[in-house]
Parts: sequence; structure tokens; C-alpha cells
Amino acid sequence: MAAERILAPSPIDLNCDYGETFGGSLVQDDVTLLQYVSSINIACGAHSGDPDVMRRALTQARTHGVAIGAHPGFPDISGFGRRLLHMSPDEVYNSVLAQVGALAALARAEGLTLTHVKGHGALYNHAAHDLPTATAIAQAVATFDPALILVGLSGSAMITAGEQAGVRVAREAFVDRAYEADGSLRSRRLEGAVILDNQHALAQALSIAREGTVITYAGTQIDVPAETLCLHGDTPGARERAAVVRQGLAAAGVVVRRLGV
Amino acid sequence: MAAERILAPSPIDLNCDYGETFGGSLVQDDVTLLQYVSSINIACGAHSGDPDVMRRALTQARTHGVAIGAHPGFPDISGFGRRLLHMSPDEVYNSVLAQVGALAALARAEGLTLTHVKGHGALYNHAAHDLPTATAIAQAVATFDPALILVGLSGSAMITAGEQAGVRVAREAFVDRAYEADGSLRSRRLEGAVILDNQHALAQALSIAREGTVITYAGTQIDVPAETLCLHGDTPGARERAAVVRQGLAAAGVVVRRLGV
Amino acid sequence: MAAERILAPSPIDLNCDYGETFGGSLVQDDVTLLQYVSSINIACGAHSGDPDVMRRALTQARTHGVAIGAHPGFPDISGFGRRLLHMSPDEVYNSVLAQVGALAALARAEGLTLTHVKGHGALYNHAAHDLPTATAIAQAVATFDPALILVGLSGSAMITAGEQAGVRVAREAFVDRAYEADGSLRSRRLEGAVILDNQHALAQALSIAREGTVITYAGTQIDVPAETLCLHGDTPGARERAAVVRQGLAAAGVVVRRLGV
Amino acid sequence: MAAERILAPSPIDLNCDYGETFGGSLVQDDVTLLQYVSSINIACGAHSGDPDVMRRALTQARTHGVAIGAHPGFPDISGFGRRLLHMSPDEVYNSVLAQVGALAALARAEGLTLTHVKGHGALYNHAAHDLPTATAIAQAVATFDPALILVGLSGSAMITAGEQAGVRVAREAFVDRAYEADGSLRSRRLEGAVILDNQHALAQALSIAREGTVITYAGTQIDVPAETLCLHGDTPGARERAAVVRQGLAAAGVVVRRLGV
Repeated sequence: MAAERILAPSPIDLNCDYGETFGGSLVQDDVTLLQYVSSINIACGAHSGDPDVMRRALTQARTHGVAIGAHPGFPDISGFGRRLLHMSPDEVYNSVLAQVGALAALARAEGLTLTHVKGHGALYNHAAHDLPTATAIAQAVATFDPALILVGLSGSAMITAGEQAGVRVAREAFVDRAYEADGSLRSRRLEGAVILDNQHALAQALSIAREGTVITYAGTQIDVPAETLCLHGDTPGARERAAVVRQGLAAAGVVVRRLGV
Repeated sequence: MAAERILAPSPIDLNCDYGETFGGSLVQDDVTLLQYVSSINIACGAHSGDPDVMRRALTQARTHGVAIGAHPGFPDISGFGRRLLHMSPDEVYNSVLAQVGALAALARAEGLTLTHVKGHGALYNHAAHDLPTATAIAQAVATFDPALILVGLSGSAMITAGEQAGVRVAREAFVDRAYEADGSLRSRRLEGAVILDNQHALAQALSIAREGTVITYAGTQIDVPAETLCLHGDTPGARERAAVVRQGLAAAGVVVRRLGV
Repeated sequence: MAAERILAPSPIDLNCDYGETFGGSLVQDDVTLLQYVSSINIACGAHSGDPDVMRRALTQARTHGVAIGAHPGFPDISGFGRRLLHMSPDEVYNSVLAQVGALAALARAEGLTLTHVKGHGALYNHAAHDLPTATAIAQAVATFDPALILVGLSGSAMITAGEQAGVRVAREAFVDRAYEADGSLRSRRLEGAVILDNQHALAQALSIAREGTVITYAGTQIDVPAETLCLHGDTPGARERAAVVRQGLAAAGVVVRRLGV
Repeated sequence: MAAERILAPSPIDLNCDYGETFGGSLVQDDVTLLQYVSSINIACGAHSGDPDVMRRALTQARTHGVAIGAHPGFPDISGFGRRLLHMSPDEVYNSVLAQVGALAALARAEGLTLTHVKGHGALYNHAAHDLPTATAIAQAVATFDPALILVGLSGSAMITAGEQAGVRVAREAFVDRAYEADGSLRSRRLEGAVILDNQHALAQALSIAREGTVITYAGTQIDVPAETLCLHGDTPGARERAAVVRQGLAAAGVVVRRLGV
């Protein structure tokens, strides 16, 4: 099966998170990342971002021609959305809907429409294994616009929930994170969770894009089918890694193409 | 001119602000108000409200059949949006767009669409005389949906800006606030700013609805043409006043009809 | 043992939460509650409250002569601090310290000093059974001022942690909440969790104050020793219940005395 | 007078703002700046900062032996405290008191005490010419601890208010900002407002430290007596400029000494 994929690898999307700061702050996103990715996930104000940051990210996305997605998170600015907050499914549904709606409205100012929705941080991780939370997210997407693509961890409850809710899904895999044997991401609390070596990251990107497989931290091979690859913008050396991965994929003949095309 | 209006008074809308609390709080809106008004303005999270409160307000609006509007304010929870914040027109535009978008998204969960947008507190007051701010609000409405009705103080810069931006406008007048000779609202810091006497409030409602006029605090008569009347929900005796006004209008043959019909 | 307490019941404190709103809002605390309690727990801005609300609560506390305590909660305004947020012990420690410090500073404006600290909502409940969280709270109190009294659920990990940290503790019991056989509060999601009958609430107050016992929801008697009784200010009929309990305790010869005296 | 100062220049403090991010964010302060300054102003949560960021800043201050001050701002995260918010003097007083109290409490965790208080952004600028606001800040400092040093723009209302309130004041001057003839800072909206040339910045630092004078943007010399010099940490090349200024002052025999010594 993997061999067939090598013969005709599908195009793949490269995404990164974006707009995770506040408007009045002098800290800004690294706009150079936008030349390496084909889509960005824009924070919507709950864990970070505000209308001015969201707007600036949209303007930059338009300039660089990347696809835009909403990146809703738990309402926890001080924790950057990385801490689990026990919200009920109804609360998750309302929160995601409001966050997506805010970004979609700002996108109109740039003449853009949203392509996808991808949860952030603890919301993403929780939805990967908690079906009620995943379903709440999927239903919010379905309510807002069934044509939106829901991005979730490949093989997780988020994908299941999206399919059950009748929305288009894109399976995501990670270039710079180690995998466990069950397909989950190795916890950041453990050694070797983040892949900082650029060639290692590229190798993982290539095996996902061409074969839909990953070599786990323990050394075994598992299936990780994916339509989109995540490049973290906030790890050390992120910009260089993005360049290496993008150019390495091109050199190997893998077409990088934004979601929804 | 006024005499003609008496012969054939136009239908008028009665609106009140709503959803100005937080989801987890036990403080809730006074749902009984909804039987007296024909439209509500729902806080969108910047000065008050959160996705759960917004959703609850929308559900109640659907049940009571009132029109729904966005009620964007300055991002100032501790000041409840009642303090002027020096935002640039671009910042106001982005903020209003995001707030309207969030509410509009949640409205889809109830199968509703927004009818209007009305600024809150200091944003409303500032837009009444500051044309750049008013224009930013009007353009945000035009960007989001030119079919939305923009509500502003009758005779103010908000109305001018709405007309210039090509959006539908509804002129608002106040049942329970005293007017100055220039058509502005008497400052809340001055004596007699708020009309707490129910019969006085009804008399003002009737003269606005039938003649488009108001007797000012100083005793003179001025023109205050209006398509919608505001009933404050948070003044002492608000519920009883709303009942008296609604019933008094009906008794006088004034048709109360929601905006946009 | 219970019999001895009947012969000479210790004085007991009556506390309620306070200041759980925002400064610019027209929603205010029910100041009439202050005549029935001997101490109040003031929200410190994380789950509710802001500097103006905190100040107003302190002014009212001074006028009514009640003891003041900090009421720190999870930083979750939209959830009112009632949702568990996965904060590390270090994060809890820092958050509680900052919240207590803010209130203590404002107390200086009124010439007051804090008497106690009591966690709010999900933080209180989590600390009742999670020792690391309880220890973080206790250590924050010890760092700020070892003379402060730490209030926690009678028999819970919060009391253990306070004793281990070397701070004074006050065991709390609830007048208007049903107990389970293990001494925990009956979940609000279950029937009969809240005691709305005033005579029932008074009977429970008396048995705690005089005997240190409670009749559980299942009908058995358990020990619930307590130095302070909580009166919820936000349940239906709260004011009347507070009056009945206060007067009933007085009629039975139980002295109500603020903590720390 | 200036000549005397050259003969025996007083020691001067070098300060920079710090901790202006959020705990869960990967964006962190540039800790290398701490080797060049003698005191830091730590954001207190209103315009930026949260308990975890404040704590981390305090830990780093302890390690580097710099003096610590509170850096209160308007409660405006999305605007980073750079937009004027119309708060009443009472609201400013309460807000500053709460912010200072939160930081002072966290300082206890590091065994530190606050040395000074310096307003941030729009609050600093507004207090430089609005005496009621300046007085509210000064009285908050006096209430919290009269031994604290209040830092304000040299020659401004903040200094006057501090003296009237009976607190110690430190006059501040800017190394990397151009001055107008009236002693105010040249608006950032005008050309030449920020001094990016390191030698120019050093020259201004030296003339302030040794003579208490500055050459204005228009080319005239004015008196700018100062006990502390501000180094912005967020301008391009800030780290290198800080190094040049610190080393240049040392080479010229100017002693850099933290406030309050």
C-alpha cells in the first residue's frame, strides 16, 4: 500500500499557526514563514489574538496567497490555550462558533473566505481523544459552513467526529513531533518529543507525504495518512526548518498545495 | 409636518439591550422584558457577554420572536464599555466586524439572522459626534452585510456615516432619557437625565412615535424623528416602565413593529 | 464528644461570597446580606471582580464591621471560576498570591487588613481532594502572611495542606448544601444538592454549630466540625435564608463571631 | 549649574520595562538586557503580564540583582496599554493599587521588595500632564507604601503630584527618544521620535547624566534633570543600544546605581 503511494504521491498542504499575539504588542509573527507554508491557522481571540492581529494576519495571508483557517482555542490567555479547561460540549460548540465567526467576518474585509478550522493546543489535544468535545467542534463547523474543512490529528476522534458531522476533514501529521506506537504525539514532557534536527524533520515529512507512514520514537513504522503537515512556527530554528522541509519536499517531487483546492 | 404624522403614525420598533452578563454567572437577563420589546441588542463579548450568554439570548429571542441585533462596545469589561477608549478608526472597524461576526455565527445555531447593529455605551456616544468613529462602524456593517440596519442616535454623526456608507439606518430615540435643546441626551451626571416616571416616559414615547418630537429638559420642543425607541433594561423599575410604554403605545394606536419588516 | 459541644458551643463565623461582578456593571451585590454574616470572601479579579468592585466591597465591609477575606479563583471570567482549569501547582501558587496581594493592597485604602483566604468554585472543590493544588494555595497564603486564616472544606485536603504549611485553618461547613456520607458536598448535578428550605438550613446550621454534625442526604449522621458556616448569596431566597439562620442561631444561644477574633 | 554636575555627576539608574507577555506564550523577555540595567519595571497584568510572567521576571531580577518596580497600565490587553482609557481618578487609584499589590505579593515569593512604581504607556503619558490622574497614581503609591519611589517624566505633573502626595520621586529621562522644546517627548507619530543611532543615544545619556540637559529635536538645549534613564527593550537594536549606553556611561565615569540605594 505504501509502495503505491510512492508512485503517485498526492499533493500535501503545509500549515502553521499564526497571529498568536496582541495588537498593541510589538511582538509580531514571523512573516517570512508565509513563504514556506500553503495555509495558516489564525488565532481567534480566545487563547491569543485580537481583531487587529487577526486582520493583520489576514492581510499577510492575502499577500502571500496562503489559505486561511480559524484556530480556536480555550479562553485562557495567560495559559495560551495550552491548559485543559473543563468546558461542556455546549460551551465548546458556542465558543468555537463565535471564534470562527469573528475571523470569518474580518476575512470579508480582505475579500477572503475561510478554508478550514483547526483547534489549538489543549482543545486540539482533548478533541483528539474525547469524542463529545470533538463532536462539539465538528458541529460548530457544520453549523457555520459545511464547506469548511475540519483539520484534526490523523487517526483521532476529531476525524471521526468530523466524518459523523458530515463535514470535510483533513488529516494532519506533524513534521517536528515524535510519534508513539499508538499514533499519538509523544508528550512534550518526555525527552525527544520535539524534532529539532532539520534533516530528521524532512525525512519524516517525506515519509508522511509519500507513504503515509512515520517511524515512531520506539523505532517501529506506523501508518499516518495525512492531507496536511504542521510546521510549528514557535520552536527554535522554526524558520530554517520550514525552509528545509519545503525545499526538500519540492526536490522529492512532492507538490505542496493548499487545502481546499 | 408633525400634524401629518399624527394622522398616520408609522409603526415603530421598541428595542432594549440584552445579554450583558457572563455565562457562568448566576446573574441573568430579565427575560420578561422580551414581551414588551420588538428587538434586542445583544452584547458581543467586548464590554460584556460571552458565547454562552450570547447563545442564550439568541434562544430567548427566537422564542419571543424579537429581532436581534449586535451590540458591539469598547473592549473594556471592568468599565462595561462606558468609558471612552481611544481606538483608531481601523481598530474600531476591526473590533466591530469581529463582534458582529461572532454573534452572527451563533445566530446560525438558532436559525436566525441579524437584523441590525447598534453600538454600546461610550462607543455609541462617541460615534454620535465623532464622524471617523461613526464611519468605521458604518463601514464594518457595510463590509459584513449591507442589508444590516445600522441603529444610531437620531440626528447624529452615526446616521450621517451610515447613509454615506450606503447602509440602511434606523434613527433611535430614548423614552427614558431627557434631551437637550441640541438633540443630544442630557448627561447622566446632571439632574433629571433619566426619566423614571412611567407616565412621563410614555408621554415622550408617544410624542416621538406620533409626531417625531420631544420636549427638552429646558421645556422647548425639538424634532427627533425615529424608527426605533430604546427602553433601558437596567434602570430602576425598567420592567414596569416597559409595560406601561408598550401598552400605552398600543392604546394610542401606535403599531410596534420590529426593525427590518 | 458531640454532647460536650452542646453544653458549650463555640462561637462560629458566618461567611458569604461577595463582590462577584464588574465595576461598570449595574449589577451589584446585595448589601443587605452584610447584616447577617460576620465575614465576607471578596472575589479578586480572576473569576470575577475588578479593582473598583473590590474597593466597593471593602468599603461596605468596613461600614458593616465584617471580616474580609480574599476569594481567589481560576482565571475564567466566562465560566465564573466554576470550571476546572488544569493549572500546575506553581501556576496556582502564583495566581493565588497575586490575587490575595491585589485585594490586600486595596484593603489598605480602607484601613483594613485581610483576615482569611478562601478559594472559589472549582479551585475550592479541586483543592478539597487534590493535595498538590491545596498545598499550592496553602503555601501562597504562608508566603503572603502566615497570620492569615486559610478556610477550607471541613475534613478535606485543603485543611491538611494548611496544617502542613503551618498556617491557621478554619474548617468550613455549608448550611444550604446536602452532604454525602464521606463528608463531601452532594454534587449540584444531583437532586437535593441545595437546601432551599429555610428551616432545614437552620437545623443544619444548628447541628453543625452545636454538635459538629450533619445528617447526610442518605440520612446518616456524620461529623463535620467547623469554625465557619457558608451562606450562599446567590441561591434563590438567599437573603431570607440568611436572616432565618442568623436569627435562629442567636435564638439558640450560638454566638456568631467573625474569624480571627 | 550644569558645570558643577560635570565635576561630580550623581550616580544614575538605568531602567527598562519587563515582563510584558503572557505566561503560556513562548515569547519571552530578552533576559540579556538585565546585565545592562540597574532596575526593571514589571508589567502587572492590566496591559500585559500575568502571575507566571511576573514571577519569572522577579526570579530573573533576583538573579541579576536589579531593583524591581511595578509597571501599572490601563486595563487594555489588546491595545497593550498604549491607548488612553477615560478612567476616573478613583478608578486609576484602585487599579494602580491592585496592580502594585499583586506584584508586591509575588515579590515575597522571591524574598524581594518593590523599590519603585512607574506607569506604563498611555497611563504614563496621561499622568505627565493630567494632574488628577497623576495624583491618583501618587496617592495609590502613598497608600501602599510611602517608602516606594514614584518614577515619572522629568518636569511633568507626575513629579508634582508625587511631591504633593509626600512620596519619594525619581525623575526619568529617555535615552532613545527625542525631546521637544517644552520638555515633552516628541510624538512617536512624528519623524525622528525614536533615536536608533547608538552613539546618539549614548551622547544623550551622557548629557543627561552629567549635565541634566538634552539637545531637543529643534536643536536647542533644555534642562532635563533625572535620577533614572529609560532604555526601551522593544525597539530595534535595543540590546546593542543598552550595551553601548551602559559601557559608555562607565567609560565616562558615570556610576550606574539602582534606585533606592
